[in-house]
Amino acid sequence: MPTVTAPSRYRAEDLTRFAEGLFRAAGLDAEKARATAEHLVEADLMGHTTHGLAQIPGYLEEIEAGLMAKAGEPRVIADRGAAITWDGGTLPGIWLTDKALALASERARRHGLAAVAIGRSHHIGCLAVYLRKATEQNLMAIIASSDPSEATMAPFGGLAPVFTPDPIAFGIPTGGDPILVDISASITTNAMTGRLRREGGRYPGLWAQDAQGRATDDPAVFGASPPGTLLPTGGKDHGHKGYGLALAVEALTQGLAGHGRAQKPTTWAANVYVQVIDPAAFGGAEAYLRETGWLARACRESPPAPGSAAVRLPGERAVALRRAGLAEGLALYPGIMAGLESWAAKLKQAPPPAIA
Amino acid sequence: MPTVTAPSRYRAEDLTRFAEGLFRAAGLDAEKARATAEHLVEADLMGHTTHGLAQIPGYLEEIEAGLMAKAGEPRVIADRGAAITWDGGTLPGIWLTDKALALASERARRHGLAAVAIGRSHHIGCLAVYLRKATEQNLMAIIASSDPSEATMAPFGGLAPVFTPDPIAFGIPTGGDPILVDISASITTNAMTGRLRREGGRYPGLWAQDAQGRATDDPAVFGASPPGTLLPTGGKDHGHKGYGLALAVEALTQGLAGHGRAQKPTTWAANVYVQVIDPAAFGGAEAYLRETGWLARACRESPPAPGSAAVRLPGERAVALRRAGLAEGLALYPGIMAGLESWAAKLKQAPPPAIA
Repeated sequence: MPTVTAPSRYRAEDLTRFAEGLFRAAGLDAEKARATAEHLVEADLMGHTTHGLAQIPGYLEEIEAGLMAKAGEPRVIADRGAAITWDGGTLPGIWLTDKALALASERARRHGLAAVAIGRSHHIGCLAVYLRKATEQNLMAIIASSDPSEATMAPFGGLAPVFTPDPIAFGIPTGGDPILVDISASITTNAMTGRLRREGGRYPGLWAQDAQGRATDDPAVFGASPPGTLLPTGGKDHGHKGYGLALAVEALTQGLAGHGRAQKPTTWAANVYVQVIDPAAFGGAEAYLRETGWLARACRESPPAPGSAAVRLPGERAVALRRAGLAEGLALYPGIMAGLESWAAKLKQAPPPAIA
Repeated sequence: MPTVTAPSRYRAEDLTRFAEGLFRAAGLDAEKARATAEHLVEADLMGHTTHGLAQIPGYLEEIEAGLMAKAGEPRVIADRGAAITWDGGTLPGIWLTDKALALASERARRHGLAAVAIGRSHHIGCLAVYLRKATEQNLMAIIASSDPSEATMAPFGGLAPVFTPDPIAFGIPTGGDPILVDISASITTNAMTGRLRREGGRYPGLWAQDAQGRATDDPAVFGASPPGTLLPTGGKDHGHKGYGLALAVEALTQGLAGHGRAQKPTTWAANVYVQVIDPAAFGGAEAYLRETGWLARACRESPPAPGSAAVRLPGERAVALRRAGLAEGLALYPGIMAGLESWAAKLKQAPPPAIA
């Protein structure tokens, strides 16, 4: 990775205004530009730097190419009260998923739980960002996503790519800071692989295999012909776990939305499953928070194993980074702002002022 | 493991009648004895031999000790249509979970999806057995379970046990044989650990750690003082995945049921989350099966990696074993029938006749 000293910092609201301006100038309608900009800055604030402003050039290219719809509403395919299905029509996935989360939350308060399946959404960004919105209302959220136009992970024991990293995320309110679990069915992601390849880096473990099935830490296998594949969570040792999760995620997303690999889509076509659960409709919000709060404390109080300073909860670092970024300004991952300069010039948007 | 040649085979219905007789003689009411016996034989048929008839001595001991209730109904804590919560009152967990699956299936047909959370259930056996019942009706099922009276898995990066293996299972209908995903948040389970300790065996990988946090393949660390712990799925390399799953499973089970570790239960007190999804209420059953069927074929057709004969789907081997066992009789895991002989004598039940 490049050596960087004293990176520039930006105010989150300046970054949001800049990103929003870019999306507006590219043609997204106001609500969609705002939602997308806010989400990407939130992702950077939470340290998910491959899924923050780093996504902007890709999104703008997709808008220019007509592959991300600029305006309109999802088409309602089915609505059974607690189960809603939309055709996302390649609309901005972040705006769609925000809207699905709000609807699922409203319906969960009525029915106890509710889910929205979205077919043909555009890229939905960083799952952890949505989770926090649910947990702030003492709701539990489950969000999964897959893109049937891509395949980079092989089934356990196989060589041919069948799956995407197929993330699934769980937002768990605790009464204090939320637990934000965001895991992929593969050990690592396409975005991380792309970044390491550009930087000439290696995975910290044997997270991929070459086309002959040899485990490797070298992301360059994705540039080989035929290319390698991501290994499922558990790797060569117990990768049936990640393989099982991938099947579940693709069934929840592509299966329920009724749009997937069988249709061989060739352009971005994320499918999304958003489920919200209201603990108040089950054993009660108080009892739920008592249990999740107890668990969070028990984990934090566990003596650390050698090599780890302390046991952290999933999302703990993200929430702390976000607080610091909002208070002191946000230092973007190296190269992000430079990568936006040509777009800023083209779309006549002034880059945000650095504050440090 | 002990060397075994030409093990005895039994007809499944003879095993079921024998198990049912034992439970009836021990005092379970007719419906509960029958459901429990059928389930345990199904688990053995599907090759889940740690969760089949091997569980009978433990169950009978719990009945004798008054720790498994012999009769009665769960108490309804809440019913919001799509969200139901029961206090299981230490009733037989298999009977409770069967009943919860039937109710969730009925409600899912009405609302699109539905979930039952059960607190204070007794042991629920093998998750995969329930899945098949849902997938046979073209329903998708998600089942999770945890027992707050035990803790054998540490959080990622920690040393103190906080979690149980915390299994989560997904039943996915495909139009052909179902996909039955049954994974634990830890790499291996307590039942497998117990069996390997009794047999003096080792795990096939570094699946546990000793009390100082050193990864090991030796289950004997659970006999040390202080004992070791199970490693989360992903192990020392990427165990944040299994850790995240464990938190999600305990929130779904103990959190929603409102009964968990905060109450420090000291006797068996499984908490269960049973969710059923009706694909017909989303993008349609036909579209769902088209996608899941496509995925199943794509996985099977993937060229195998070195060391694997073919790519299998989760549940494929279980379904094939079950068919063979029903047709040709069932060879129990070594020692199972011998372990039941003293109970058969005590409860005056004739052991089933061997057919080979």
